[in-house]
Amino acid sequence: MISFDDIQKAYERIKKIVNHTPILTSRTLNHKVKAKIFLKCENMQRVGAFKFRGAYNALSQLSEIDKQKGVITHSSGNHAQAVALAAKILDIKATIVMPNTSNMCKVNATRKTYGAEVIFCKNTLESRRETTEKLLQKNGAILIHPYDNDVVIAGAGTAALELLNDIPDLDVIIAPVGGGGLLSGSSIATKGFNPNIIVYGAEPMNADDAYRSFHSGQVETNEDPDTIADGLRTTLCERTLQIIRKNVDEIFLVSEEEIIEAMQFAWERMKIIIEPSSAVPIAAILSGKVPIENKKVGIIISGGNIGGLSEFFDEFRKI
Amino acid sequence: MISFDDIQKAYERIKKIVNHTPILTSRTLNHKVKAKIFLKCENMQRVGAFKFRGAYNALSQLSEIDKQKGVITHSSGNHAQAVALAAKILDIKATIVMPNTSNMCKVNATRKTYGAEVIFCKNTLESRRETTEKLLQKNGAILIHPYDNDVVIAGAGTAALELLNDIPDLDVIIAPVGGGGLLSGSSIATKGFNPNIIVYGAEPMNADDAYRSFHSGQVETNEDPDTIADGLRTTLCERTLQIIRKNVDEIFLVSEEEIIEAMQFAWERMKIIIEPSSAVPIAAILSGKVPIENKKVGIIISGGNIGGLSEFFDEFRKI
Repeated sequence: MISFDDIQKAYERIKKIVNHTPILTSRTLNHKVKAKIFLKCENMQRVGAFKFRGAYNALSQLSEIDKQKGVITHSSGNHAQAVALAAKILDIKATIVMPNTSNMCKVNATRKTYGAEVIFCKNTLESRRETTEKLLQKNGAILIHPYDNDVVIAGAGTAALELLNDIPDLDVIIAPVGGGGLLSGSSIATKGFNPNIIVYGAEPMNADDAYRSFHSGQVETNEDPDTIADGLRTTLCERTLQIIRKNVDEIFLVSEEEIIEAMQFAWERMKIIIEPSSAVPIAAILSGKVPIENKKVGIIISGGNIGGLSEFFDEFRKI
Repeated sequence: MISFDDIQKAYERIKKIVNHTPILTSRTLNHKVKAKIFLKCENMQRVGAFKFRGAYNALSQLSEIDKQKGVITHSSGNHAQAVALAAKILDIKATIVMPNTSNMCKVNATRKTYGAEVIFCKNTLESRRETTEKLLQKNGAILIHPYDNDVVIAGAGTAALELLNDIPDLDVIIAPVGGGGLLSGSSIATKGFNPNIIVYGAEPMNADDAYRSFHSGQVETNEDPDTIADGLRTTLCERTLQIIRKNVDEIFLVSEEEIIEAMQFAWERMKIIIEPSSAVPIAAILSGKVPIENKKVGIIISGGNIGGLSEFFDEFRKI
């Protein structure tokens, strides 16, 4: 299991390359939840998500020989772009396995903006794994798993560390949980910084494997999770489950309507674009389920990449 | 003409009530324009726009007798909500004259959230003036003009002052120009802070009255300005023209497509919601028209209130 020291070293490694993201507050939000909320805006991180921290931390530590082999990952989302950009900066060849149903904006960003090679697979977990496995055997590239990977988790934890360096007297930190990389890294960073700070996870009710795993002690699965929070459809692995069981105090569940309302609140009232996964912790506090009254609470806003904006602007062009 | 001292005093008066808004930066934007850009995010101001600064500065200085008379203004946009909220905080009765074609979200915010009385008029300048004039005669309320008013201008100037207090070594400040209140206040604050800092205005080509007035020396008008930047359709008045002629170095014009592209850039890449009027200075620098290479440039992001988001989220609910 990685340590606080690993996260501090990761931060030293990546701090000149990542954005030191802003921390935003909202008078209205504080009033609604009777607490002081600090949003750590990783939606304003490079590639629009915290994922860049883990990807860069992982790729920058590869040996020269491994760098020449190139890297590979499977992702339809932010991790794909994060690996692609980190690889571009470090001059490493990157191959990304993406479902053939992926949003073409994300495919194009991965391919054109960041110069990675995109290999399509069918939209099943099995096809992803098979396609990746074949490529690994064929070209010997290094697999960069989105969360079942210590250096990726250590990188992810640097967002919470940066937040705590800026606001050391937080009482609570909340992060969304999907595969558990962000929550794992955040919890180690937080408990290492100050063991008295409470760490909560927030998860969609419709993909509540982490909640169930946290309480049962074994990795539970989701059958076809139906949530708008597409970044949180994955399940914990043994590695993230152990970290979360050790360092996290509780996981709270929210409904789909609560997620959309929280997202709309962030957009309309705070004027920041967050993706549905990032709205999950805000939904949790707005629902009143989380005991935070009169506390100082940090929330990791995991990302801000969302489809449909092009169409929104096309409408503007028609006016 | 108001002085730098007026703006400093306004800031002392309002600083505990307004939000000290964040200043955001973008690696991609800096790279594109070969300069260091600092966005002063008044879209994150109370009511979502810089207008709250001027409204609160004006209302807080009314005599007790005038406070009892109540205030009145005509606006379909941010100034209406700004006056309504300032009046609510100061326990003053507010009447807002709005065109009967106004966005119902804005009408409801003004009426329900901020508790102002809304009186509808026809959607012409003449009807607005007549309706307001009648109400002024009838109930003796105090008119709070959105920009032809020294205390409103002094309040508007506090955004630039706050920006300069945070980043004193800026080379250039750019603000959008409609009626000229924000640009006037910004220019007095900037030249008073340091006369060597350049001040530019940015204006839609399709509502270029300020550009023409700035060069001709007299108040020019717009015939039915057709711009998406609805906050900038108004024209300068004698008061703002004199200030701008004295303190502003140049005004740059941008096309409608440039405005939409700049707005889309802010949303998609910077993850902040800005309204079309706020995109105008970003459009100006992205167009390459403004000489800012290697300079440190502050931009006043005037607001982030935009229609159509409810419909965008309704689509989400259908998924």
